[in-house]
Amino acid sequence: MMPKSVYLAGPEVFLDNAREILDLKIALTREAGLVPISPGDLSIPHMPTKFELGLEISKIDELLMNRADAIIANLTPFRGIAADTGTCFELGFMCAQNKPAFAYTNVQADHATRTLAYFNGEMWRDARGLPRGPDGMLIEDTDMIDNLMMHGGVVNRGGSVVVGNAPAGAELTDMTAFREILKIAAAMLA
Amino acid sequence: MMPKSVYLAGPEVFLDNAREILDLKIALTREAGLVPISPGDLSIPHMPTKFELGLEISKIDELLMNRADAIIANLTPFRGIAADTGTCFELGFMCAQNKPAFAYTNVQADHATRTLAYFNGEMWRDARGLPRGPDGMLIEDTDMIDNLMMHGGVVNRGGSVVVGNAPAGAELTDMTAFREILKIAAAMLA
Repeated sequence: MMPKSVYLAGPEVFLDNAREILDLKIALTREAGLVPISPGDLSIPHMPTKFELGLEISKIDELLMNRADAIIANLTPFRGIAADTGTCFELGFMCAQNKPAFAYTNVQADHATRTLAYFNGEMWRDARGLPRGPDGMLIEDTDMIDNLMMHGGVVNRGGSVVVGNAPAGAELTDMTAFREILKIAAAMLA
Repeated sequence: MMPKSVYLAGPEVFLDNAREILDLKIALTREAGLVPISPGDLSIPHMPTKFELGLEISKIDELLMNRADAIIANLTPFRGIAADTGTCFELGFMCAQNKPAFAYTNVQADHATRTLAYFNGEMWRDARGLPRGPDGMLIEDTDMIDNLMMHGGVVNRGGSVVVGNAPAGAELTDMTAFREILKIAAAMLA
């Protein structure tokens, strides 16, 4: 049987050692018996403006996703308390095509815990008993790793979410949770 | 001709006056000649755990999106420098279905400017001339309002992105940019 291909979504493309980390994820995916499709693999044509370059990369990434059988999304918080927005777009893109979706994070604290920390622990409960920050905004608390659209999109399609606990400073490079989700994905896609 | 329906994605659902603001967006959408489909309209069944509640809301929001002809995504930064991750998932979800997509933000500073501010203005350029933060991570700079998947997904489908400049404190409630994108969407969907 043809091995299934997996789009490797995540903020690793922004790292200073992006090539090294992407190559490591690609190698681990192959070892797991899956075909990696990595956004870092695109060869970007020269474009007259950075805006047009942005449009072109977006187009190529969408083409790569259309070609992939499944997605593994790295939802580790990126520059703040939430996942990389590009990765979230990509997870939604693949969920809409009803392709098997898997996700992981290298940070153990869940969405509500991180949001509470963002508000320095300040919270109160509204008339319905829902937790809110000092600015009145809801602290979404559904025992999920990020906004419920991500975690729900994965689980509602039968996919899994792996929660890792990488050492400080290795949140975007640690492969423990990725190796685990690869095993699960490979078994499900076999 | 049947008026087209538009899914109104955005972080307004988290506001303390969510109902009021969602109702205002719904009314403005109707005034523009479009049929609003608002995630705040869902009636949520009682679920045994908050996790199952999260799954259920995710399922209902996806059903609402499948029913909608187009999307208007509010990509105003939410609890940090980037758009609400749930909204980004939803924009990706609709782009994958190749439905007309529109976006707006109420914050004038673009993605690169906000990221630079996140790093307190500290940046350097790598060997390829690309801007990086003090931690080595790329500062994506494509003259876009958020990660290129969002802005690119909209523009590559012929949609528009409106950049507003709401007064401080009104970033999630100001309707100026929303009114503008509604006009554009209504004209394109007519």
